[in-house]
Amino acid sequence: MHKKDIMSNKQVFINDRFVPLTAASLQISDLSIQRGYGIFDFFKTVNGKAIFLEDHLDRFFSSAAQMHLDIDLDRKAILKILEELTANNQIPDSGIRLTLTGGYSSDGYLLNTPPNLVISQTELQAPLVLQDQGIKLMTFDYQRQLSGIKTLDYAMAIWLQPTIRQAGAHDVLYHNQGWVRECPRANFFIVNHDQEIITAATQILPGVIRKNILSLAAQGFRVVERDFNLEELANASEAFITSTTKHILPVLEIDGKAVGTGRPGEVTTNLFDQITAIVKKQAGL
Amino acid sequence: MHKKDIMSNKQVFINDRFVPLTAASLQISDLSIQRGYGIFDFFKTVNGKAIFLEDHLDRFFSSAAQMHLDIDLDRKAILKILEELTANNQIPDSGIRLTLTGGYSSDGYLLNTPPNLVISQTELQAPLVLQDQGIKLMTFDYQRQLSGIKTLDYAMAIWLQPTIRQAGAHDVLYHNQGWVRECPRANFFIVNHDQEIITAATQILPGVIRKNILSLAAQGFRVVERDFNLEELANASEAFITSTTKHILPVLEIDGKAVGTGRPGEVTTNLFDQITAIVKKQAGL
Repeated sequence: MHKKDIMSNKQVFINDRFVPLTAASLQISDLSIQRGYGIFDFFKTVNGKAIFLEDHLDRFFSSAAQMHLDIDLDRKAILKILEELTANNQIPDSGIRLTLTGGYSSDGYLLNTPPNLVISQTELQAPLVLQDQGIKLMTFDYQRQLSGIKTLDYAMAIWLQPTIRQAGAHDVLYHNQGWVRECPRANFFIVNHDQEIITAATQILPGVIRKNILSLAAQGFRVVERDFNLEELANASEAFITSTTKHILPVLEIDGKAVGTGRPGEVTTNLFDQITAIVKKQAGL
Repeated sequence: MHKKDIMSNKQVFINDRFVPLTAASLQISDLSIQRGYGIFDFFKTVNGKAIFLEDHLDRFFSSAAQMHLDIDLDRKAILKILEELTANNQIPDSGIRLTLTGGYSSDGYLLNTPPNLVISQTELQAPLVLQDQGIKLMTFDYQRQLSGIKTLDYAMAIWLQPTIRQAGAHDVLYHNQGWVRECPRANFFIVNHDQEIITAATQILPGVIRKNILSLAAQGFRVVERDFNLEELANASEAFITSTTKHILPVLEIDGKAVGTGRPGEVTTNLFDQITAIVKKQAGL
């Protein structure tokens, strides 16, 4: 069966009810359509179990509060909706997106009405094996606005899609005048020749996999949260990105130049195994 | 009758058909809802006549092309839809918004489907008398991304709304590390003590009223398009903003400090009269 057919009978939660995906829509006065205004979060279920759920809900409520979006549902209410949604849809390996927009604005500009909440679920396989072909990145000088908030603003990322394709890259790595930040949907790490694992400290989205990698420092990994520049990146022995979708993905080439040996490194592989072990445990696998 | 009741039977054009405003919606896979991706333009009708229509359509098609949005309607087709829309709705004094989003994305990220076009019309009075109470602005260090394109990205402007209110200001004036740019929905001009009318040259949205003011240079006004900084702003004798909605609005106070005498200046008033005369002529008034 075509994926679209499988999905068409799935349910989406909008504000106070479940509707079929095909009927899931927002009126045009919504501030996401009018002004690109809103936040979201995205987590996975593996084997029917939500992965790093508390981290994602923490960030969802933090993004909402920072973005002045007053959601009148608390964590318990969201958990109840998620329970019902997953029971309805029966997609054991999935991605679940919680979107909170600026709501139906009286004049298409003022933030003065309750936000709209959309919770949707789509099929998604967890990467439980390291994708050792890795990815190629191109660098681009850009600083995400409101960087600590998971906003809907991916204007630059989407706009760059043709440029990234033309460069023969898989994704873009943002830097702010030389200071390495992140990819549009992933945090970025390097490993240096002292086996230090380094990720930017400021002006980035606090990723959930990133947070879990930082916590591995307690287990003997030398993980450092500090800003670094393109020069230090050029001397890295390994590089990888982290995201909810990909967990950890080796970065083998940046701007056409190989990173280290040009193959997935030992530290990257080791960290992938650590994170995968945590995911499998949460999934009961 | 309440405005909502008047509007509820009005028509909105979406992609290939007219629908009632109450039924005008986009599915949640639209890239505006998923990623804040899209462009728009906005023009007025006065006395049933579209004002500066060619300028707005020029910018609409320019924004679409720059944003990689392939609209399959040409100018003639858009004009035909506008004709039908205004005939249906019968709102002589109105604002008409053309929105073009990234379309229904297969995975909520890839720009690989036709855009969605929404054309809506709402009541709006043209300001044909100078609003001489003027406005107060607060400055804020921020550079709009993709600044030459009229994108949907107003994340910072909406996010700042509580801050602007707390500052007792009406709107925000963006500057990029001291270089004055624009307001979220308006261009910004100063008049210096040599009676030069100055507006930023780079990293701003090319406004339609701004363009028409620049063209007044031919009629003896000393209009200069060049970047200027906060220091030069502090020494201005007059300041004003320009926008489709407001035409020209005097700025009387910035960051709590009076601009010039703190009253609308002679040049501002004169320019307002010039622009109003053009609008009235186009409106057949």
